Amino acid sequence: MKDVIDYQKIFSDVASKVSKMDDLGNVACYIPELGTVNPNKLGIHLTTVDQLHFHFGDATEKFSIQSISKVFSLTLALKLKGDKLWERVGYEPSGCAFNSLVQLEHENGIPRNPFINAGAIVICDVLVSSLDNPKDDLLDFIKCTSGIDDISYNEKVVHSEKETGYRNYALANFMKSFGNLNNEVDCVLDFYFHLCSIEMSCKDLAQAFLYLADAGVNPITNTTVITARRSKRINSIMQMCGFYDEAGEFAFKTGLPGKSGVGGGIIAVHPGKYCIAVWSPKLNKNGNSYKGMALLEGITTRSNNSIF
Amino acid sequence: MKDVIDYQKIFSDVASKVSKMDDLGNVACYIPELGTVNPNKLGIHLTTVDQLHFHFGDATEKFSIQSISKVFSLTLALKLKGDKLWERVGYEPSGCAFNSLVQLEHENGIPRNPFINAGAIVICDVLVSSLDNPKDDLLDFIKCTSGIDDISYNEKVVHSEKETGYRNYALANFMKSFGNLNNEVDCVLDFYFHLCSIEMSCKDLAQAFLYLADAGVNPITNTTVITARRSKRINSIMQMCGFYDEAGEFAFKTGLPGKSGVGGGIIAVHPGKYCIAVWSPKLNKNGNSYKGMALLEGITTRSNNSIF
Amino acid sequence: MKDVIDYQKIFSDVASKVSKMDDLGNVACYIPELGTVNPNKLGIHLTTVDQLHFHFGDATEKFSIQSISKVFSLTLALKLKGDKLWERVGYEPSGCAFNSLVQLEHENGIPRNPFINAGAIVICDVLVSSLDNPKDDLLDFIKCTSGIDDISYNEKVVHSEKETGYRNYALANFMKSFGNLNNEVDCVLDFYFHLCSIEMSCKDLAQAFLYLADAGVNPITNTTVITARRSKRINSIMQMCGFYDEAGEFAFKTGLPGKSGVGGGIIAVHPGKYCIAVWSPKLNKNGNSYKGMALLEGITTRSNNSIF
Amino acid sequence: MKDVIDYQKIFSDVASKVSKMDDLGNVACYIPELGTVNPNKLGIHLTTVDQLHFHFGDATEKFSIQSISKVFSLTLALKLKGDKLWERVGYEPSGCAFNSLVQLEHENGIPRNPFINAGAIVICDVLVSSLDNPKDDLLDFIKCTSGIDDISYNEKVVHSEKETGYRNYALANFMKSFGNLNNEVDCVLDFYFHLCSIEMSCKDLAQAFLYLADAGVNPITNTTVITARRSKRINSIMQMCGFYDEAGEFAFKTGLPGKSGVGGGIIAVHPGKYCIAVWSPKLNKNGNSYKGMALLEGITTRSNNSIF
Repeated sequence: MKDVIDYQKIFSDVASKVSKMDDLGNVACYIPELGTVNPNKLGIHLTTVDQLHFHFGDATEKFSIQSISKVFSLTLALKLKGDKLWERVGYEPSGCAFNSLVQLEHENGIPRNPFINAGAIVICDVLVSSLDNPKDDLLDFIKCTSGIDDISYNEKVVHSEKETGYRNYALANFMKSFGNLNNEVDCVLDFYFHLCSIEMSCKDLAQAFLYLADAGVNPITNTTVITARRSKRINSIMQMCGFYDEAGEFAFKTGLPGKSGVGGGIIAVHPGKYCIAVWSPKLNKNGNSYKGMALLEGITTRSNNSIF
Repeated sequence: MKDVIDYQKIFSDVASKVSKMDDLGNVACYIPELGTVNPNKLGIHLTTVDQLHFHFGDATEKFSIQSISKVFSLTLALKLKGDKLWERVGYEPSGCAFNSLVQLEHENGIPRNPFINAGAIVICDVLVSSLDNPKDDLLDFIKCTSGIDDISYNEKVVHSEKETGYRNYALANFMKSFGNLNNEVDCVLDFYFHLCSIEMSCKDLAQAFLYLADAGVNPITNTTVITARRSKRINSIMQMCGFYDEAGEFAFKTGLPGKSGVGGGIIAVHPGKYCIAVWSPKLNKNGNSYKGMALLEGITTRSNNSIF
Repeated sequence: MKDVIDYQKIFSDVASKVSKMDDLGNVACYIPELGTVNPNKLGIHLTTVDQLHFHFGDATEKFSIQSISKVFSLTLALKLKGDKLWERVGYEPSGCAFNSLVQLEHENGIPRNPFINAGAIVICDVLVSSLDNPKDDLLDFIKCTSGIDDISYNEKVVHSEKETGYRNYALANFMKSFGNLNNEVDCVLDFYFHLCSIEMSCKDLAQAFLYLADAGVNPITNTTVITARRSKRINSIMQMCGFYDEAGEFAFKTGLPGKSGVGGGIIAVHPGKYCIAVWSPKLNKNGNSYKGMALLEGITTRSNNSIF
Repeated sequence: MKDVIDYQKIFSDVASKVSKMDDLGNVACYIPELGTVNPNKLGIHLTTVDQLHFHFGDATEKFSIQSISKVFSLTLALKLKGDKLWERVGYEPSGCAFNSLVQLEHENGIPRNPFINAGAIVICDVLVSSLDNPKDDLLDFIKCTSGIDDISYNEKVVHSEKETGYRNYALANFMKSFGNLNNEVDCVLDFYFHLCSIEMSCKDLAQAFLYLADAGVNPITNTTVITARRSKRINSIMQMCGFYDEAGEFAFKTGLPGKSGVGGGIIAVHPGKYCIAVWSPKLNKNGNSYKGMALLEGITTRSNNSIF
């Protein structure tokens, strides 16, 4: 038995402490549809590679996973294209905001990593070129590898992002001007906005990303999602780049590879042990879940569980 | 008689000297349609406020004036909106390339001046909001104030720019994300690309911009194009910002307010005296006419004519 | 008689209007010794090339001319080294704060122009290499060409700058790391701090810089300070770069080449006509005299006197 | 027995493979004294928390550890000042070169992390303020916690760095101008240059940094170097920031927290398992050991040993 930690107890202790914190954050408002969520939602779900489950609060409620889905698109693109992918996107932390155009200009349209917006758009362009029906194929890939059937896009969120996503149109056009986008801007962004609109619960996320804790194989469905070597590399990229300009903060306080989304979700992976997902909608000024960060810091501290 | 300088002699001397220079520049190739021009064209036309004309070479051949037309759009926008215009665009030199997004990001979507691409796009947005038929109304304004009838857009150039102008789409979307664009990106850029496609000859240009040499009044048509005070301000902006990241070079060598275009044209104004236009299609690395710069330097040096 | 404008009347009218303005600026405090000046001082002095004098207020009181002296050092360096000087410093506006290191890093230690701090330090390095006794020789040059005897350094200000001038030490060391400083940092900065500590009155300044209004010759002493061609170029550099990141503002509102100092002084030149100096110690947020800018705007507007 | 991997075999296999690579790197030449090293040196030493030792090649030869020593200074400063340290330096990756001033200017003199030069200089300032005899006290701290007696500064290297370290003088003065340096620049840099001049062997390094693999306690001397919580945080900072603008590359390929120096040394830590040091003097363009990076990539791949 690998894990004898009483996560259930830890969850309720930590959640109780966090619930007393002033939540200084704000629900993402730049995508109007996201602003309608109940800001007091709080969910935790941890699944071990031995398929033990621990959960707390709103762990089975679906929410907009937003940028967390960039780990799915990276996984699929890496599976399809291999190391040639790195000719079009790097894997270094950016030191800039998630939607900055500055670095892109200085580095000729090659985004720093696949998790800043520019990099995720390039990954979408790769998938649009490689897949017959990008939107269907991506959902199928997630469903198939995770064993979860009810995963879908939220067309209202897609519409909301299209109406207001001028910065993403700017990024896509900017990269196209550098020759780093092969398909039409509208087509790539349609896929990108769908990617960001995926809805899943904490339970779904912990289960779907369990392959990153088990060397590329999802032990629940017993499918090889990606090779062990690439699974390790995706973890390293999450470690270095998963929290925009706050990656150091998360590494420092939590010490696990992870990825956040502006819907208030965060996933984190302890390689060889477990995948955990938390959800609390209010965001700090860097765009990461305010209480979600605190929950994960508390949980890893209490369980003495960090890769460092 | 204000001007007793023998410009005719100066033109042929300077042109003869310049024609012997190696033309190290290149015709603008990022807009495919511009690449079809004969690179050896060379024209000069000077018109004094007393309506004396001096010319040389291909002075009556129409060419794509490109960014030179941004002086027309600025004039019209300033006439229509007055000093409120400066809430949306500055009048400081940029210290950056003409199509840079970096400064825009650091300065919250307010372009540095009306002559870099971002600033000219904001001016177009202002005109789209203010005019009933922006494209027709702008052409009418130019024709009416200059007394020149045969001025038109080149739809082939418009089409060529639309097909390849990703950087301008990036700039427009970027400003829209900051709230500094009120109309739809496609609509504003359609007008912007038309603006840049205007075709005029050196003779046309010298005549059409003569109002900047005569306190806002075009002496040929006797129309008040703009107030004296604003005419002076447009000249100061041309001085500071008319040559992208080479404004200092032009001030240093020529010493007149001016504006260049990637079609190889340049206009320059000697307030109180004359307006001059030159044309030579090959561009230096900063996007300004290689021989055009040399012509104007030679002419102002020989005629001892500079505002400094 | 070239100038029949009643400057005396204009000065008292404009000064009366400006004196009623709230002075929103602050006296320079980063150099403690400068903080001791009376903030209500206000002086104006205009000298025409025909040697007519017009003045107002504290026009004969000496003050710390600070960066205005960079026009003297540029003139002397250009006289000594000629166009080779431009291999080590540019003449383009910077688009950045006067003491920024950012652009220097992107452009390999070549400062944008001789008036930002980095550029003025390079000019000092050139003079330290070229002169036997840089401090004595520079003062002699100014005295000799201007015909003013009582010009001196203020050692208290030098001391004050040395104690607090870490940013300038940073700039000098930074350029030395790029190989663009030939002498020892301490030696160059000792000269630089002396240069900035020169004290002159408005009357002194208008007289000393009159050569820039008269094609390089000071008509009072009848000495050729520099060639006509270089005088014109110094004017163009003042126009483009004389007010740090507010050069466009000054060109726009006043329309004359000029140079400001953090002591609250400003000089401006109308080529062919006059040199004017104003002084009011409180600075706006860009480090230029708040009321000095307003005085010059008022005076050039009232006298309808601008190069544009 | 925690580790049954035959590291000896892996070392000779990987070293044999790496020795056949073209070494495209160059020995650090900006510090002249470093240029005298034999570029063909190659050493590896791994020490497990159970005190097993594995080594290869020049593992006992002392070399200039350069920036690796910044992990010692950080450890000591964190021990002395606790979390108040983070008011003066961050722990985010920089996305810039190790000696960049750009980010410092945008972020008001607070360096991004303790491993870029600016951050290490701030740490030195903290130690100069806190220790009676900074140079002696630091060496004593390292000797005492590691149990190694013959560790010393190389005064020739110190002298060499002082003669040529203009960029570091620029950084220190720049931070002092922002108020983020409490002691005199010369004093802080004297300590900084000594810190960088420390000489140790691979064996020494693996032993001295073993506390980072064992929750803050060095198992060899049985001394608590720092708390477990802070040991974990130092590891996270090494992970995020240990390789300048190549941190992602190292995380991606090796997957361990580590720190490099321009002397060609690299240490890496597998928390709970071991500390490894490698040495090969030639550097890649990012200033990290060219073959050292390849050695560690090969070793962690072969031993299937990564935190991800």
